[in-house]
Amino acid sequence: NPEYDDDGDLIICKLSDRRRVTVQDFRGKTLVSIREYYRKDGKELPSSKGISLTEEQWSAFKKNVPAIENAIKKMESRNI
Amino acid sequence: NPEYDDDGDLIICKLSDRRRVTVQDFRGKTLVSIREYYRKDGKELPSSKGISLTEEQWSAFKKNVPAIENAIKKMESRNI
Repeated sequence: NPEYDDDGDLIICKLSDRRRVTVQDFRGKTLVSIREYYRKDGKELPSSKGISLTEEQWSAFKKNVPAIENAIKKMESRNI
Repeated sequence: NPEYDDDGDLIICKLSDRRRVTVQDFRGKTLVSIREYYRKDGKELPSSKGISLTEEQWSAFKKNVPAIENAIKKMESRNI
């Protein structure tokens, strides 16, 4: 079942105890956010630590996932 | 040819004029960052607006790319 945060944004996954990936509709525009949350008065609220991508930016990001993977692998092999 | 920012981090791509995806080695740990940059004294510097993912967080994120895609599609279809 889909899980929503206290702002009504769809929680895709948690990356850590505090970090979440959400998809939201913000005034008719879809935003993909990777953001840290904090707890206040029993609620979990989005902090300023994070970034919200427009659909265009998300699309550019997605295309670069293989390039990110390659860069990580190269960096790791240098560290061994 | 690989492009590096003024901090020596590898620039994977630009998501907008100001937003960049970088991969860096930070004290032996690989970080994937999505971050806004600002210009100062002719240099482009990373701002606090953004997030840096550890490799573990990146790995969790990557697995959820299809779930993000699905959520976007569902949201769009509701808006039509």
